[in-house]
Amino acid sequence: MSRTSDLLAVARVAAFSALLVLGMSAHAQTDPLPSWNDGAAKKAIVDLVQTTTTQGSASFVAPEACIAAFDRDGTLWVEQPMYTQVLFCLQRVPALFKVKPELAKARAFSTVLELLRGERPAMEELNLKDLEVIAAATLTGMSVETFNGEAKKWLAEAKDPRWKRPYTELTYLPMQELMKSLRANGYKTYIVTGGGQDFVRVYSEATYGIPPEQVVGTAGGTKYRYGKDGKPFLTKEPKMLLNDNNAGKPEGIHLMIGRRPYAAFGNSTGDRQMLEYTSAGGGARLAMLVLHEGPTREYAYCPAQGLPDTKVGTFSQALYDVAKLNGWTVPSMKMDWERIFALEWLGRRGQTKCSNG
Amino acid sequence: MSRTSDLLAVARVAAFSALLVLGMSAHAQTDPLPSWNDGAAKKAIVDLVQTTTTQGSASFVAPEACIAAFDRDGTLWVEQPMYTQVLFCLQRVPALFKVKPELAKARAFSTVLELLRGERPAMEELNLKDLEVIAAATLTGMSVETFNGEAKKWLAEAKDPRWKRPYTELTYLPMQELMKSLRANGYKTYIVTGGGQDFVRVYSEATYGIPPEQVVGTAGGTKYRYGKDGKPFLTKEPKMLLNDNNAGKPEGIHLMIGRRPYAAFGNSTGDRQMLEYTSAGGGARLAMLVLHEGPTREYAYCPAQGLPDTKVGTFSQALYDVAKLNGWTVPSMKMDWERIFALEWLGRRGQTKCSNG
Repeated sequence: MSRTSDLLAVARVAAFSALLVLGMSAHAQTDPLPSWNDGAAKKAIVDLVQTTTTQGSASFVAPEACIAAFDRDGTLWVEQPMYTQVLFCLQRVPALFKVKPELAKARAFSTVLELLRGERPAMEELNLKDLEVIAAATLTGMSVETFNGEAKKWLAEAKDPRWKRPYTELTYLPMQELMKSLRANGYKTYIVTGGGQDFVRVYSEATYGIPPEQVVGTAGGTKYRYGKDGKPFLTKEPKMLLNDNNAGKPEGIHLMIGRRPYAAFGNSTGDRQMLEYTSAGGGARLAMLVLHEGPTREYAYCPAQGLPDTKVGTFSQALYDVAKLNGWTVPSMKMDWERIFALEWLGRRGQTKCSNG
Repeated sequence: MSRTSDLLAVARVAAFSALLVLGMSAHAQTDPLPSWNDGAAKKAIVDLVQTTTTQGSASFVAPEACIAAFDRDGTLWVEQPMYTQVLFCLQRVPALFKVKPELAKARAFSTVLELLRGERPAMEELNLKDLEVIAAATLTGMSVETFNGEAKKWLAEAKDPRWKRPYTELTYLPMQELMKSLRANGYKTYIVTGGGQDFVRVYSEATYGIPPEQVVGTAGGTKYRYGKDGKPFLTKEPKMLLNDNNAGKPEGIHLMIGRRPYAAFGNSTGDRQMLEYTSAGGGARLAMLVLHEGPTREYAYCPAQGLPDTKVGTFSQALYDVAKLNGWTVPSMKMDWERIFALEWLGRRGQTKCSNG
């Protein structure tokens, strides 16, 4: 390459970069979803908002009925290699042994110790029943205020092992933009998660702009008691009221919201029924499953795409088939998301490189 | 009386009436609670709103935490002589016998028939367990959409036996004003009722301005199923998830709202724990129990005031003592409520005479 063509190439790059910067800036002012690349997924979102919120549109929805439901793990923040909340629960186990050393003999609890020591690779050694037993043992009898305080403290201190940042900073920017855009257009946004309702409510307002009363999650019972000072308080009880996974998601939506959403967002098999229920409602509805196929920027897991199957947030072939059959929107993190993390966007320390993949 | 003094008296009455009309009109423009007479109860409401919503006040509450909880039966509408919703349920029983005639032999069901025929005076013959059995028998397996449709139809047709008006018109004007005033000041109003959550949600928005997702009530489980056309739907199941009475009220508030209210309104023993929980929250809180002591305009029942004890909405001596001990506000319908029904205020047909008592 001659020196002239070198210079030309540099000039071209510079001009293109300038255009890009100017274009992005102009775009950012008007586009409520700047970190979504143009494509079917972004179009589906824009179309839903337009048709359901424009007076006179055939698909217009009364403002008070505009409800959007978001799964949390893998949809609003990172869920690999282990659900954050499970970790919160497991890390309480060693302290429990000091009070009840006999528990160390039980399989579920000894497995937890091995997991925490890194002697076992993943949480697949623990099934739902084990987790229920552990949650019951670590939380039963605790006042809801104490629980809130401990969860808040843990969330402030705990860090993701890969990015060394608090979990609450590892939320997905495109989903944050989407929630804000929906709210700006009159939608009420809900979290509908398999995670514990009380845990999510501790940080949902600060992290996602979603108030506690708009969090539907797996919920245990509480018991109304009186303290020695005569003051009443509520304690957490081992009774499961709502297992907000799979069919539990639409059931939980009925219990806690009482209206069928117009949009639902998930990423795994546990979200299938919520999306089915949403899209079966008639009129304009949006059902979306986020596909994790970016190992560099985040994680890659989806057997239907030849990616690893994980016990955490499985996107099975069966789910993929249902999504195709029903015409659900399946954005790829790799192709549809220009940026992944709110952290990067905010320009904080600890940025991960924003290359594709 | 001389003719002069006659004329003087007439003139005085006319002048007083003119003043009254002018005064009331000016008052109505500035007073958000025109049907509340001046007194401790009205002052307590005005004080709560002022101290919790004025920036810089020592009792200022973040707007998103301003939550007010209202019992329904006896607090927002008439509950005598029988809870409206129980009637809805009981009136479904005869149709059930056509499908399952063997039920007529069961005590609970034969009692229902006697009640409906007016052969028994009150619903005290049926206990909570009976009502659960009846609800399970009449509602299990019904889709939530079918239930909503039937409840809506029933509410449109059924009439209160005393006033011959739909139940939804027999709401208390002072409480409607109170809810509107709280909302105008940024409060989020909730219904927290022992009644069935699904039933209340059918009419809460139109009748009280409270959307379905802000109704907490006694809730049964639902089951996610697929129809023959492959479409998913939810059916009502006989499993009780939340008995939203007594201790169930604060437990239900925690489950469904996740925040402690700053104001709670009730009228009977079943509201005690909700009021205790609310007032134990610290800072400025309002706990209020409406006292039904107006037999002419509405009903009179409260053993603590020497009024009849009813099985419906009992305001026991023990509750009265707790209210006094805790400094709760106990407005009297007779003394504190200038008007009772929204119906009168709206000037619709079927007005009841607005004499005191």
